[in-house]
Amino acid sequence: MQIDTVIHARWVIPVEPEGVVYENHAIAIHDGRILEILTSSAANAKYTADAIYRLDRHALIPGLVNCHSHAAMNLFRGLADDLPLTDWLKNYMWPAEERWVSPEFVRDGTRHAVAEMIRGGTTCFNDMYFFPEETAQVAVEVGIRATVGLIIIDLPSAWAKTADEYLVKGEAVHDAYRHNPLINTAFAPHAPYTVSDSSLAHIGVLAEELDIPIHMHVLETAGEVDQSMAQHGEPPLKRLQRLGLLSPRLLAVHMTQIEKEKIAEIAACGLNVVHAPESNLKLASGFCPVHELTQAGVNVALGTDGAASNNDLDMFGEMRSAALLAKAVAGDARAISASKALRMATLNGARALAIDSQIGSLLPEKQADIAAIDLLSIETQPMYNPISQIVYATGRNRVTDVWVAGKQLLKDGVLTSLNEQAVIKKTREWQQKIAGTRAKR
Amino acid sequence: MQIDTVIHARWVIPVEPEGVVYENHAIAIHDGRILEILTSSAANAKYTADAIYRLDRHALIPGLVNCHSHAAMNLFRGLADDLPLTDWLKNYMWPAEERWVSPEFVRDGTRHAVAEMIRGGTTCFNDMYFFPEETAQVAVEVGIRATVGLIIIDLPSAWAKTADEYLVKGEAVHDAYRHNPLINTAFAPHAPYTVSDSSLAHIGVLAEELDIPIHMHVLETAGEVDQSMAQHGEPPLKRLQRLGLLSPRLLAVHMTQIEKEKIAEIAACGLNVVHAPESNLKLASGFCPVHELTQAGVNVALGTDGAASNNDLDMFGEMRSAALLAKAVAGDARAISASKALRMATLNGARALAIDSQIGSLLPEKQADIAAIDLLSIETQPMYNPISQIVYATGRNRVTDVWVAGKQLLKDGVLTSLNEQAVIKKTREWQQKIAGTRAKR
Repeated sequence: MQIDTVIHARWVIPVEPEGVVYENHAIAIHDGRILEILTSSAANAKYTADAIYRLDRHALIPGLVNCHSHAAMNLFRGLADDLPLTDWLKNYMWPAEERWVSPEFVRDGTRHAVAEMIRGGTTCFNDMYFFPEETAQVAVEVGIRATVGLIIIDLPSAWAKTADEYLVKGEAVHDAYRHNPLINTAFAPHAPYTVSDSSLAHIGVLAEELDIPIHMHVLETAGEVDQSMAQHGEPPLKRLQRLGLLSPRLLAVHMTQIEKEKIAEIAACGLNVVHAPESNLKLASGFCPVHELTQAGVNVALGTDGAASNNDLDMFGEMRSAALLAKAVAGDARAISASKALRMATLNGARALAIDSQIGSLLPEKQADIAAIDLLSIETQPMYNPISQIVYATGRNRVTDVWVAGKQLLKDGVLTSLNEQAVIKKTREWQQKIAGTRAKR
Repeated sequence: MQIDTVIHARWVIPVEPEGVVYENHAIAIHDGRILEILTSSAANAKYTADAIYRLDRHALIPGLVNCHSHAAMNLFRGLADDLPLTDWLKNYMWPAEERWVSPEFVRDGTRHAVAEMIRGGTTCFNDMYFFPEETAQVAVEVGIRATVGLIIIDLPSAWAKTADEYLVKGEAVHDAYRHNPLINTAFAPHAPYTVSDSSLAHIGVLAEELDIPIHMHVLETAGEVDQSMAQHGEPPLKRLQRLGLLSPRLLAVHMTQIEKEKIAEIAACGLNVVHAPESNLKLASGFCPVHELTQAGVNVALGTDGAASNNDLDMFGEMRSAALLAKAVAGDARAISASKALRMATLNGARALAIDSQIGSLLPEKQADIAAIDLLSIETQPMYNPISQIVYATGRNRVTDVWVAGKQLLKDGVLTSLNEQAVIKKTREWQQKIAGTRAKR
């Protein structure tokens, strides 16, 4: 049978069923989708293909799903570090954004971010930023999958001035991309402390109508809880519940301020938690009780946050940090095993974005979103357990090849749909402008 | 003036003074030592050299000092994960060690570990394992600096049967290497729960006599404290104080069980804390209060722990994890800045090992132990602050060149004194034997 692509690999880790590792298997791909996973010898007998890869040092995993990014902020990476969230936001990021954010900024920053993500095995990202139409456009150009956040914030920006204008522009982006196979949209109200009751209630209704997720920073810091009590007389989750936002549509990002006795309620409403461990650590926001949430049945996905806070878009790093930190926070070294961490970084992300019928694991019929990792180096030997090795000992630099919907975006470490040197050159131009102004302030 | 080596680089980060970054500077090296750091143009005018390097994409930093390793355990990397310390030790590591540890095992495992460390910018390691003479021999062969632990443990091993035999053999290793410029030794009593009062008291006296450090796991878990109370009627630190071990000679590794009110006492006795954040997280041991210790004036160094627990020897990872975790544990995003984390991974380690007059920063007269990091990649752009970039956004894979005492051990990513393929081949032979037995158990 003649098909598009066969990828043979030393190991194939489908994520479903959890913990399974197939040795010397192949993935057969046609029309962007996985046809089947079978032994290499069976694949040789059954298929001829236009492209055949033999990756005998490699493990294949589902492409990583980064469930929380601010892609364009790559241009601010390292601009301000070692500061608390409020200081960092109000005195550094918001002024920098006011000065610099434009369609061109978002385009160039997102190109850089997408280059970084693909090089690190990420094939889908859930973004929140201004000018989401530019983010979507870059994703389509490059061929990466994205859920583009239709941001709403009670602060004027170069993109929109009022909550209503944000919503109207957001809906236009949704309409423009509704039939694009790579692009999904989500409402992205910034946070409880930056969006009004009426806007939030409106978003709840619209999300039902359009049948799209809601992506929001929730319970990131203790200060957010205090402010909500002072301003609304109720804690953020209670307020979001009153406004109709606590549902399986919600991707609640961060969630470091969870009282143990509230975990059952959180599980009952079916919301998704997006855990961003390195951002939470760096901003000293707090600890998300990932093990307890998982035990209660909450779907926990992973995100990097923006490179201005974290300071990278490295899902291998987040996967590892999530597995390590969950154990210490739970006081239980058995919490979040390597295979659970890999699932958080793939299938759980797809589920949070409501696209787990399309991506998140290597199953027949799903999209061929795949990352190949070279595991034959000093750093990843010996090899008793490939999943442990991927989570605990491998860096994103070992990713060699990446496919999205069957299209190869990274080939032996080289980006196929972006010119890496051109991206770096553009970023350095921005750096000179941004650093120049900073010095003058 | 004719000298051995001049290394020009885009950035030179000497660590002393803290936070300083020299741009377009060069390091002049002769007879294994740093002569001076000067502008590249001044170096061109002043020096001719046998070897001249022009690293215009790179930052030079002092070689990283890994203050806690069990190098040979690299052969057990990934053998058992996601388990609590006691279970992991008693049911996995100690039986595996009983079955496999031999001079050949230590030689081969240490070669693998040293290859991994050099590739990741580490130029000095403080090790604790059986057959320390083999560890020392490998370090000398390869040309890396090491402080070799003279292990003492109340458990028989292939190396020694009784505490006295451990001590006698350890002293012989000390004598054999006392004049070797790359090798130092330290007494390495395993932990309070595995070494008797009389052995500890004896070690305290001998360490004074020989003028060498004491390297020990201390306050790793809550269980250790409970056991000490039950067995000795006093907590571990009090016991170590009674036995004369709490002094600037001590490298107390882990220290997760510190009561806040004891921090001033810890500072007063001058001991060094070796923080191993990723090991503490993975084994759910607890959180070391690094920020508070540092504020109190305690010298805090960094270690990876063995690759069987952690699961790598990646000092970039530990540096980053230390900076991130300290902020969350202290509840203060200003805690352990990037430059403090870099200092922990270099100068503080040298100070803990009492060799800070020799290594740990790039100062004239010190040994030329240097790592070069390529910072011109998608992942490390834009570049507002090289120190932030190194700690928060760079992986060990960006290390391209490493020198120890002026001798180049890594050249453009390739090991000069070890055959990487031969090391991997040997490790895979061990893997087959070790995995084979495991399956049969």
